[in-house]
Amino acid sequence: MIYLNCDYNEGAHPRILEKLIETNMEQLPGYGEDCYCEEARKVIRQVCKAPEADVHFLVGGTQTNLTVIAALLRPHQAALCVESGHINVHETGAVEACGHKVTTTPGKDGKLCAEEVRRVYWEHKNDEAFEHTTQPKLAYISHPTEFGTLYTKKELEDLKQACKECGMYLFLDGARMGYGLCADTTDVTLPVIAENTDVFYIGGTKVGALFGEAVVFTDRALAEDFRYMIKQKGGMLAKGRLLGIQFLELFKDGLYFEISRHAIAMAKLLKEGIEKLGIPFFIESDTNQQFLILPEEKIKALSGRYSFSYIRPYDENSGVVRFCTSWATKEADIRKLLEDMKSLRAGQERTELL
Amino acid sequence: MIYLNCDYNEGAHPRILEKLIETNMEQLPGYGEDCYCEEARKVIRQVCKAPEADVHFLVGGTQTNLTVIAALLRPHQAALCVESGHINVHETGAVEACGHKVTTTPGKDGKLCAEEVRRVYWEHKNDEAFEHTTQPKLAYISHPTEFGTLYTKKELEDLKQACKECGMYLFLDGARMGYGLCADTTDVTLPVIAENTDVFYIGGTKVGALFGEAVVFTDRALAEDFRYMIKQKGGMLAKGRLLGIQFLELFKDGLYFEISRHAIAMAKLLKEGIEKLGIPFFIESDTNQQFLILPEEKIKALSGRYSFSYIRPYDENSGVVRFCTSWATKEADIRKLLEDMKSLRAGQERTELL
Amino acid sequence: MIYLNCDYNEGAHPRILEKLIETNMEQLPGYGEDCYCEEARKVIRQVCKAPEADVHFLVGGTQTNLTVIAALLRPHQAALCVESGHINVHETGAVEACGHKVTTTPGKDGKLCAEEVRRVYWEHKNDEAFEHTTQPKLAYISHPTEFGTLYTKKELEDLKQACKECGMYLFLDGARMGYGLCADTTDVTLPVIAENTDVFYIGGTKVGALFGEAVVFTDRALAEDFRYMIKQKGGMLAKGRLLGIQFLELFKDGLYFEISRHAIAMAKLLKEGIEKLGIPFFIESDTNQQFLILPEEKIKALSGRYSFSYIRPYDENSGVVRFCTSWATKEADIRKLLEDMKSLRAGQERTELL
Amino acid sequence: MIYLNCDYNEGAHPRILEKLIETNMEQLPGYGEDCYCEEARKVIRQVCKAPEADVHFLVGGTQTNLTVIAALLRPHQAALCVESGHINVHETGAVEACGHKVTTTPGKDGKLCAEEVRRVYWEHKNDEAFEHTTQPKLAYISHPTEFGTLYTKKELEDLKQACKECGMYLFLDGARMGYGLCADTTDVTLPVIAENTDVFYIGGTKVGALFGEAVVFTDRALAEDFRYMIKQKGGMLAKGRLLGIQFLELFKDGLYFEISRHAIAMAKLLKEGIEKLGIPFFIESDTNQQFLILPEEKIKALSGRYSFSYIRPYDENSGVVRFCTSWATKEADIRKLLEDMKSLRAGQERTELL
Repeated sequence: MIYLNCDYNEGAHPRILEKLIETNMEQLPGYGEDCYCEEARKVIRQVCKAPEADVHFLVGGTQTNLTVIAALLRPHQAALCVESGHINVHETGAVEACGHKVTTTPGKDGKLCAEEVRRVYWEHKNDEAFEHTTQPKLAYISHPTEFGTLYTKKELEDLKQACKECGMYLFLDGARMGYGLCADTTDVTLPVIAENTDVFYIGGTKVGALFGEAVVFTDRALAEDFRYMIKQKGGMLAKGRLLGIQFLELFKDGLYFEISRHAIAMAKLLKEGIEKLGIPFFIESDTNQQFLILPEEKIKALSGRYSFSYIRPYDENSGVVRFCTSWATKEADIRKLLEDMKSLRAGQERTELL
Repeated sequence: MIYLNCDYNEGAHPRILEKLIETNMEQLPGYGEDCYCEEARKVIRQVCKAPEADVHFLVGGTQTNLTVIAALLRPHQAALCVESGHINVHETGAVEACGHKVTTTPGKDGKLCAEEVRRVYWEHKNDEAFEHTTQPKLAYISHPTEFGTLYTKKELEDLKQACKECGMYLFLDGARMGYGLCADTTDVTLPVIAENTDVFYIGGTKVGALFGEAVVFTDRALAEDFRYMIKQKGGMLAKGRLLGIQFLELFKDGLYFEISRHAIAMAKLLKEGIEKLGIPFFIESDTNQQFLILPEEKIKALSGRYSFSYIRPYDENSGVVRFCTSWATKEADIRKLLEDMKSLRAGQERTELL
Repeated sequence: MIYLNCDYNEGAHPRILEKLIETNMEQLPGYGEDCYCEEARKVIRQVCKAPEADVHFLVGGTQTNLTVIAALLRPHQAALCVESGHINVHETGAVEACGHKVTTTPGKDGKLCAEEVRRVYWEHKNDEAFEHTTQPKLAYISHPTEFGTLYTKKELEDLKQACKECGMYLFLDGARMGYGLCADTTDVTLPVIAENTDVFYIGGTKVGALFGEAVVFTDRALAEDFRYMIKQKGGMLAKGRLLGIQFLELFKDGLYFEISRHAIAMAKLLKEGIEKLGIPFFIESDTNQQFLILPEEKIKALSGRYSFSYIRPYDENSGVVRFCTSWATKEADIRKLLEDMKSLRAGQERTELL
Repeated sequence: MIYLNCDYNEGAHPRILEKLIETNMEQLPGYGEDCYCEEARKVIRQVCKAPEADVHFLVGGTQTNLTVIAALLRPHQAALCVESGHINVHETGAVEACGHKVTTTPGKDGKLCAEEVRRVYWEHKNDEAFEHTTQPKLAYISHPTEFGTLYTKKELEDLKQACKECGMYLFLDGARMGYGLCADTTDVTLPVIAENTDVFYIGGTKVGALFGEAVVFTDRALAEDFRYMIKQKGGMLAKGRLLGIQFLELFKDGLYFEISRHAIAMAKLLKEGIEKLGIPFFIESDTNQQFLILPEEKIKALSGRYSFSYIRPYDENSGVVRFCTSWATKEADIRKLLEDMKSLRAGQERTELL
C-alpha cells in the first residue's frame, strides 16, 4: 500500500531524529523554558522578520487553534471562517467546547475574502437585535487552505485591512504553511504573513517534524498570559525541548523550505501527469494537495494499492478524491500512481492493479 | 405608537396579576417546591395527557433552551436545527457557551424535516473521519417556527421516528406554542406534541404570563438531575411560586387557549385585510406572526406610527417585515393599521401618517 | 407553619404589585430598553452617587454572579472568595460551569480581608510554577455575608486598595444589601460601596421585589458588551420592564430602605429576646439573619411550628440554625417564636408545641 | 548543574529512540489507528490482566486528566480529590475550564481515603439544598501521590468499594505509576489497579518515554465516544504511531519496570544517605520523590550546583524541598549530592560548593 492520503504518514525528517538523539541525555528545564526553545524562538523571529513577535510551541493543530481562539475571545465573541474551515468541520467542535460560536461564510475556493469580513461585521453591527447574536471578533484562515489554495499577498493585505477596520483579529492557521510558501506561484512569504496577521502558526507536524506547531503573535500584546492558556488547555509539553529542538533544526538553515520544495516538486509531477491523462481537477491547486474527480469505479480500483482521501461524491458516477505529497514522498511512488492511472484509463480491469 | 413588533409588549393577562395579588402574602417554600408549582405540574401533565412526564418551570426561553440542551448532551455532541433556528441566530451563542456546536441544515419554511435529520445523521456516521466532527444528538425545532409556520401531526411523527432511528433526542421549543395550538389549520395538540417529542416547553412569556416557560420531559429519565442544571445555569427562581401560580392560572380552565385564540383571531383579521390589499406575504402563516413584503418607502411611512420588526431586505426596493399579534392585541389597532396600509397603498404620502 | 427560614417566602411589597398593575397594559419595548428601566437606572445612579455608573437588571442572584464573573475574567483567571462564599458553596458550580476556578481562603466571620487578597496574589505571583495555577483576578464578597456579618467602611477601603495593588477586580454581591445598609451598627452606605468596588449589585429578590438584581458597574469600562453576556447566559428578561418598574418603585422615594429597616427591627426584636433567654449565638449579626446554637431536641420541637434553616451540627447534642426576618416579617410571629423558645427553655415537652 | 528537580529532564530511554528511528519511514495511518498502537493496546491489556479494557493514548498528563474527566461527568457533577491533588493545584484550572468544580477534602499524606469519599457523598446527599451544590461523581487519585506516597492494595479496594456505594467513578492518575509499582514496599500491581478503578492511566512522560500517557478504561462502557473527546480537547496526535511505538517498547518486555526500578534504586540511595546525615524528611516516601526539610541557608548553597524543587517554607528558617530521581538518574550524581550535603552539614560555607 502506498499512502498518499495525508502528509503525516511517516515519522520525521532524519535530521530531526538525529538532533533528538544528539541532545537526548542533556538535562534541560521543562515546559519550553530550555535553551533550544529559546534559540528556536529567535530563529523564527528572524525568518519572519518580526523581531518583536512572541513565539510559543504547541503539539498539534486542533490544540493550537482552540488555545489561540480561547485566549483571544471574550465569551460572546465568535470566530469567523469559511464553511470548509478546519475549525468548523474537522475539530469535533473544539472551539465551541471553549464556548465560542464558529460563524461561517461561504468563501471561494476555501478562501475568506475581505468583503465577507466586512459584510459579516456590518450585518452584525446593523442588526437591531445585535446583542442577541454573537459578535464576530476573529477571522480564521488557513494558508494553504483545506483545498490546497493560496492567498495572494494582496488578498492577505486586504483581509488585514478589513479586520483592522472591523476591530477583528486575523489568525492564520499554517498547519501546511511550508507547502504554501514554496509553491511556484505564490508571492506570500513568512514576513508577508507576519506583517498581515495578528497571530499565525507554522506547522511542523505535516512538514517534517514528529509533531509541533510554532505560534507567532506578531501583536505581542495579544500573547499576554498565553502560557497559562497553553497549560490549561493541555498543550504544554513537559519535555518542551522536543519542540524547540525540532523547530530549531527545521529553521536554522532552511531545512523547512528545502523539504517543502520537495513536496511541491512531487505534487507538480503528479499534477502534470494527471493533466496529461486528461483527468479533471476538482479545484486548481499549486500546493501539496491535489483534488481530482475520478469515476467511482476507478476510485475502487486504485484504493487497493493506494491510500488517498475520499472527499465527497461529485455526481452519481464519480467522486472527489485527494492525493497528498509531503517532505517524504518518493518520486517512484508518484510515477507508479501515474502509471496505474494511465492503465486504468486504458480500460484495464481493477484486478490487474491488485 | 402602536406596538406590533413582538408578543411581549404588555405585562400579563389581568387574571394572572389578580392571582399574584391574591397569593402575595402567603408564606411558601422557594425554588419551585411550593404547592402552586406542584398543582401546576399536575394540570400540565393532564392537559398534555402525559401522566409520567416531569415538569419544570424556568423564567425565559434562551435560559430554557441552553439548560435543556446542556442537560442532555455530552461535550462532543451537537444540536441540529434549521438555519433560522432561534438557538442558531438569536441567543448570542448560548448553546455554544455551554460547549456544544449548533449544526444547521437549510430546512423549509423554518421547519426541519425527517429527511434532514436522517441525512445529517448518516453523513456523520459514514464520514471516514467521523470522530473529527461533532456527533448530532439532539434535534431542536420550534412550534410555531421563527416564520410562524407549523408542523403537521404527520411531520412531527416522522421527525420523532427519524430521531428514534438515529438515537437522537427531539426537543421542541414552544415559546409561542399557544399561537400554534390555536391556529385554525393545525392538527397538532399538546398530547400530540407530548407523544412525539422527548422534551418540549410551553411558553408563558409570549402568551399571557409576565414570564415563564414550562419544560415537559415526556421521557422522564432525561430529566435526571435537571434541577441541578436549572440552578447552575441561573434559572432557578427563588420565588418559584411566581411560575407555578402563573401556569396554574393559565392552564386550570383553558385561559391559555382562550387568549391564544384571541391572538389568532387578530392575526386572521390582519392577514385577510392584507390579502385584500394585495400586499404580498413573504411566507404563508396561520399563527400570530405575519410576514409581509413592503416597499421600503411604505415601511418608513408606517414606522412613524407602528412598531414592527424589519427582518431583512427583500430586494432593492422592498423589505420583509413582521407584524405580531398577541393575547393583548386590540382589534382597533389592527383595523387602524389596515386603514393606514390602505391609505399608503393609495399613494398617500408618508407625512399624512405621522 | 411560620416561615423564618429565608427572606423570600412572600411575594412582593404591595406597592410593587400596584405599580405592576398600573403599568400592565402599557406597550413597551422589551429587554430592558423601556422608559422604566431607564428611569430606574438614573435613580440608582443618584442614590449611589455614581453618575457615571452603568446599571443593568437581571432576574436572580446566581445568574448575576455567573454573568458578571464570566464577563470580567479570561479563561485562566479565578474568582477569589472566602470558603463560605455563595459562589463557592451554593450555586451548583455556576462559576466553574463558565470555566473559572473559585479559589478560596478561610476568611473570618464570612468576610474576606485585604491581607488575604494580598497573600493569595503574592503566593501566585511568587510561585515558580505560577503559569500552572489559575491567576486570581477578581475578589468576590457579599455584604451582608452568608453569616449576616458586615464589612466596615474601612474594611471595604482596604479591600479595594489591596485589589487595586494586585490588579484585581472587587465584586460585591448585595443580594441582601438593604439589610446591611440599614443595620444600626454600619457605616457603609451605597455611595461607600459604589466608591470601593468595581461592580456590585443591589438585591431586589430578598428585599421586597418579586425578583430582580440591579448590577452597578462603577467602572463603566468593565461593562463593555455586558448586554451580550446577559443574553448569552439566559438572564435577559423579555419583559425587562418588570425589573425597571420594581427597582424604580423601590428606590424613587426610599421604599427599599424603609422595608429593610423593618426587617432589621424584627431581627433586633428576635436577637434581644434570644439574648434574654440566654441562648447562645453562633455568630454576632446585626442584620436580618440570626444564627443560634440550639440543642437538637429543641430544634426538633420548634420545627413543628416554624420553618428555619439547619446550618450544620455544632456538637454532638446541638446544631446551628438560622432565623431570617425580612420586609414581610410580622412582629406577632417573632413574639410567638420567642414565647415558644421560652417555653421550651422551661423544659416543656415538644408535644406541647405541636 | 545537576538536575534533580523533576523526572522529565532528559529525552527518552535510548531503546525508545531506536524504535522511533527504526520505524520512522514506515507509512502508517494517523490518529492512533496504526498497528503499533493496536499492538501496544494488546500488550497493556495483558500486563494489566484486563482483557476487556479499552486503551487510548494521549500526549500529556493535564490533557489526559481534563479529557477523561470531561468525558465522564455531566455539567453539574464535580471531581473530588485531596487538596494537594494535581488537578486542583497544578493544571491552571483545566478541569474547571471544562465546566466542572474540583471539590477537595484534606486527605492524609496526599492520599484520599474511603471515609472521605463517603463523607463528601453523604454530606451532599443529606444537604437540604443539595441541588444548589455540585454533585460529587468522580474521585481522582494519583499513585504515587504528589508527595510520593503510595496507596496499599487494601486502601484501593476500600476506595473502590466506597465509590461503588456512592455511584462514583474512581479515576487514578498514574503519571508516575512506574515509580509506584516498583517501590520496595508496595503490594499494588497493575492488575490490582485495573481491578480497583474505573479508569486510570500509565504515565510515559516521566518514565522513559519522550511523552505519552496510556489511558485504560477497565469499565469499557465509560469509554464510549472517548475518541471524539480526545480530538475535541486537542489531544489526538496526528502521528499517533509515536505513542504506540513508545508504549509497545516500554511494555513488551518489561522495560517500563526495569527503568522504574533504577529510579527507585537511586531514590533509595539518596534516602539512605540523607537518613545517615540526619536530615529530616518532610514526608516518608518510598518512591522517586524525596521531600526534605533543609535550612534556607543550605537550600541556597545547594541551589548553585543542583536544580531541585522548592515546595514551601517549613518554618522561619527552613523550607521543604523535593529531589526527584528517574530512569535517567546517574548514581554518581546522587553520590555527589550526598557528599555536598555532608560537607554543608559539616558547616562548610556556600562558596565552597559553587
